[in-house]
Amino acid sequence: MGRRGAYAKGLAKREEILAVALDVVAKNGCRKATTREIAERVGLTQPGLMHHFGSREELFQEVLRARDLHDLDEFFAPNPRFEGFLEVIRHNTQVAGLVQLYAEYAAEASIAGHPAHDYFVERYAWVRGLIAAAIERAQEEGEMGPEVDIAEAADLIVAASDGLQVEWLHDPTIDMVARLTRVWELLRRSSWPESGVHPA
Amino acid sequence: MGRRGAYAKGLAKREEILAVALDVVAKNGCRKATTREIAERVGLTQPGLMHHFGSREELFQEVLRARDLHDLDEFFAPNPRFEGFLEVIRHNTQVAGLVQLYAEYAAEASIAGHPAHDYFVERYAWVRGLIAAAIERAQEEGEMGPEVDIAEAADLIVAASDGLQVEWLHDPTIDMVARLTRVWELLRRSSWPESGVHPA
Repeated sequence: MGRRGAYAKGLAKREEILAVALDVVAKNGCRKATTREIAERVGLTQPGLMHHFGSREELFQEVLRARDLHDLDEFFAPNPRFEGFLEVIRHNTQVAGLVQLYAEYAAEASIAGHPAHDYFVERYAWVRGLIAAAIERAQEEGEMGPEVDIAEAADLIVAASDGLQVEWLHDPTIDMVARLTRVWELLRRSSWPESGVHPA
Repeated sequence: MGRRGAYAKGLAKREEILAVALDVVAKNGCRKATTREIAERVGLTQPGLMHHFGSREELFQEVLRARDLHDLDEFFAPNPRFEGFLEVIRHNTQVAGLVQLYAEYAAEASIAGHPAHDYFVERYAWVRGLIAAAIERAQEEGEMGPEVDIAEAADLIVAASDGLQVEWLHDPTIDMVARLTRVWELLRRSSWPESGVHPA
């Protein structure tokens, strides 16, 4: 029981740290989210915090992973459609610090040998897969026509979202949801055979 | 003559530093492009280098500005069409370090109060304007139909390019030119009245 108890306690502490880090980053952005503040709020010293996460890099990567799981559970899994994806984007406007962490860290991690490089490669594939599934569902439900290259359309939506969010960080008046909705409409419009009947 | 000579010499040195910094960043990326290496290559001490650029941040911003001027002169001005823009993207695949600097620095500068924030806001407007002009020209030349919201299409191309380049940094097998060409085709296809004649 002793070791198992310690292991379970470690897991619980890790969860607590992630929840606090998510909150601190969401409010302050990644540069101002100090490990000191996170450590204080979970009642640990900084070395104590680093016992749970080997490095600041690992902590950030796990914060991003925890955020993806949250968004998946909260928005996309209940509504695995493009609309569910837009709910995630809508939520992003409330957590600018996380969007900033994601954007900066994705760019930073592209350097050869960065410890989070594999994480981002995996994540890109995962997001593209979710969007591709949403497009397939839209086809099944008759919202999207047959003439769409699903992988290509998913790529475009992911790239446009990623690019847009950096613009939005600089200019919060940009309506990401409206812009992505128009991309979806563009894909939808061109997805029907030209001689076919377009839904109203 | 004395002061004018000193001023001219200062300008020339600044140009030389920027050219070297552009080269060092293009090859090494922004993290490994040390001010030490740049200073050594232009025959200055690090404080001597910082006499010309107040900070590392200002140097990076000016590197990005010099790169935009280079790309404009070399690729877009001679061919101010979407094809000219694709030439810039094609060139980007040869200067991964600059793409990485741009992506990381754009995300970093989105933090409130960052000295390069205004630079990026201005740059976004500038790039969108260039693309909008390319779309108008495509309409004049009959390549693009009348039914396109120019500002919206320019936004999409800029966002998709920005998002794509971070994916490309992580996975250089991604063909940015091919993907952006398909975005252009999507816009072109939906730009003609449905009952109209589509060019072959």
